[in-house]
Amino acid sequence: MSSTTGSDRTATVITGIATLVTNDPSHGGSPLGVIRDAALVLEGDRVVWTGASGRAPAADHRVDAGGRAVIPGFVDSHSHLVFAGDRTEEFNARMSGRAYSAGGIRTTVAATRAAGDAELEANLTRYLAEALRQGTTTLETKSGYGLTVGDESRALRIAARHTDEVTYLGAHVVPPEYAGDPAGYVDLVTGEMLDACAPHARWIDVFCERGAFDGDQARAILTAGKARGLRPRVHANQLGHGPGVQLAVELDAASADHCTHLTDADVDALAHSDTVATLLPGAEFSTRAPWPDARRLLDAGVTVALSTDCNPGSSFTSSVPFCIALAVRDMGMTPDEAVWSATAGGAAALRRTDVGRLAPGARADLVVLDAPSHVHLAYRPGVPLAGQVWRGGVRAV
Amino acid sequence: MSSTTGSDRTATVITGIATLVTNDPSHGGSPLGVIRDAALVLEGDRVVWTGASGRAPAADHRVDAGGRAVIPGFVDSHSHLVFAGDRTEEFNARMSGRAYSAGGIRTTVAATRAAGDAELEANLTRYLAEALRQGTTTLETKSGYGLTVGDESRALRIAARHTDEVTYLGAHVVPPEYAGDPAGYVDLVTGEMLDACAPHARWIDVFCERGAFDGDQARAILTAGKARGLRPRVHANQLGHGPGVQLAVELDAASADHCTHLTDADVDALAHSDTVATLLPGAEFSTRAPWPDARRLLDAGVTVALSTDCNPGSSFTSSVPFCIALAVRDMGMTPDEAVWSATAGGAAALRRTDVGRLAPGARADLVVLDAPSHVHLAYRPGVPLAGQVWRGGVRAV
Repeated sequence: MSSTTGSDRTATVITGIATLVTNDPSHGGSPLGVIRDAALVLEGDRVVWTGASGRAPAADHRVDAGGRAVIPGFVDSHSHLVFAGDRTEEFNARMSGRAYSAGGIRTTVAATRAAGDAELEANLTRYLAEALRQGTTTLETKSGYGLTVGDESRALRIAARHTDEVTYLGAHVVPPEYAGDPAGYVDLVTGEMLDACAPHARWIDVFCERGAFDGDQARAILTAGKARGLRPRVHANQLGHGPGVQLAVELDAASADHCTHLTDADVDALAHSDTVATLLPGAEFSTRAPWPDARRLLDAGVTVALSTDCNPGSSFTSSVPFCIALAVRDMGMTPDEAVWSATAGGAAALRRTDVGRLAPGARADLVVLDAPSHVHLAYRPGVPLAGQVWRGGVRAV
Repeated sequence: MSSTTGSDRTATVITGIATLVTNDPSHGGSPLGVIRDAALVLEGDRVVWTGASGRAPAADHRVDAGGRAVIPGFVDSHSHLVFAGDRTEEFNARMSGRAYSAGGIRTTVAATRAAGDAELEANLTRYLAEALRQGTTTLETKSGYGLTVGDESRALRIAARHTDEVTYLGAHVVPPEYAGDPAGYVDLVTGEMLDACAPHARWIDVFCERGAFDGDQARAILTAGKARGLRPRVHANQLGHGPGVQLAVELDAASADHCTHLTDADVDALAHSDTVATLLPGAEFSTRAPWPDARRLLDAGVTVALSTDCNPGSSFTSSVPFCIALAVRDMGMTPDEAVWSATAGGAAALRRTDVGRLAPGARADLVVLDAPSHVHLAYRPGVPLAGQVWRGGVRAV
């Protein structure tokens, strides 16, 4: 027996919303589905009603947004948060123009292997809390700094305690002990390591790039993962042109991530697929790399997501608003497009329809901005604007 | 009778500081004066001791920084926060590539003139609180959106209730009612308006730029202000080359602000002066303008400050950390230089020695970062890292 008015399902109405971004295109004639002077009703962990403030139904509780904007919680579909150690000195040297014998990903691999479970979990939960405070209510995260059967599977077990969106990235780089035998490492990733990891993950990912895994290796790894019920996503075309994007489309990956160096054929393949292009401007910011061309992708009809790529090496930001500001300034996105990509776009990159929008039936994951409009996320760069964060119908921040 | 141990002067020791930035070059052999594994003692509103954690003297209260970094509170020496209205649509149109008949500064002037005192003061205090939460403990702000005798003087009166660093900027632009008589407006700015404003301000400033005030007008205005006891600072060389920087040096202005377009002679003049070059990368970010070349200035020996230029038109950020991240990524500053410029540099631009450093005798204005190092302000762009903010020896955030 269920009741929509029982004590466990009390309804809350949020009124006085100057700008409500629903991502429900039935409102306002645009993908963002903006309702001005709006209200929203939550019941349990779901949204049950959105509309004009004056027409809001009665509810058990009432919250006044005071002329602020409400948007869906950010869906950050790309992060690397199960790690130990720090690469401050590497960053400092790179930005200061000083020589530094950086170990890159391998530095973090060594620190992560050496860390205890409790340290890894404390790091992860710290960054998840930091992201939540900035408005991120759904966050994907990956393994990829273990690169042994035991270290990859424990990373995924730890991650799975804190998020549903867990990705097996044994194929991040070839670890030093396999430097002379990359084929042997691919065998491990598709064999014993996959056996140990598949039960704890939803996704499988490969860093398909010169210096990491080539197209054939990536195809073998993703195909093996699919056979074990994992869904593919691909680190593709970050550092140069390559086969990653087209492989992602070929395998119906949910997302091709980075997409910084694309041919016309890559763009065309994405446009005629269900594969989202996930852009990660934090990486270009922190490595002084060329920006991905979001405008080109959007004009071709590609679905674009914006995420942080939060990791200690190339993009140590957990701030989706920062990525929105960069996307607007440097990647040719309008503020509306950037906000859509950081919410509905991220959801599409995770093949989710229950998050990234605020419509009846969707999860009540939302951010009350300390601003009257979602445009302020780009208009006020760097300013922490997430005034309140609600997740699953509960105020979390 | 005074006592350093009385109940109004209790001492607090902050221990467990992984990285203490003092800006006292007697420590660590660099301008940043870094002490590792440090402690700091406050008494009343002042710092009374800094040094190695193990040598810290006893105190009445003890705070454990838990391995975090402590830096001086940011000194934001350039903002425009006495205003009403909003220019979201202008920003949105500019960033979306849509035509928009923007009124620029004049839009804000109209809204500010129409606003009541209470509205202006509420806006100002909201932005001051927002800046404080991000670690800014000293903040200069200006008039410049009134442009009548009454509106300029009330802006300064309101500002002076909340900060010591108040700047008279009647010469922001020529208001519409003087469009045909700019000389008449200069007469007003140097006459009746100056009479009304001088009692409420410490500084006088001019927007010396094509379309605003030329070098001769700017000299007349700043000279008149100096004669009334106001100290000069100049908006100089933001949009193109011009006489602003050299005029600032000629008049011993505390700062030439923007400095985006400089000749070798401009750089040389700054290097042989006590005039600070205050760089405002939020403006270049939000208008997609070329970045000022901080490296060139630093290499020439110029003192550089970093500030937000927070204003609703061209740089609506109150985030000094955001400006630090931009300065490192795009302006050639090292993380150390950027942190120095946002603290000691800002203090130099206000000719203050009591703020912007953490040494015995300085004000106890400091930020406990949620990070082990000040480098994280650039390494973790967009992330709100100001965990605690102490101002005048009192924890404010």
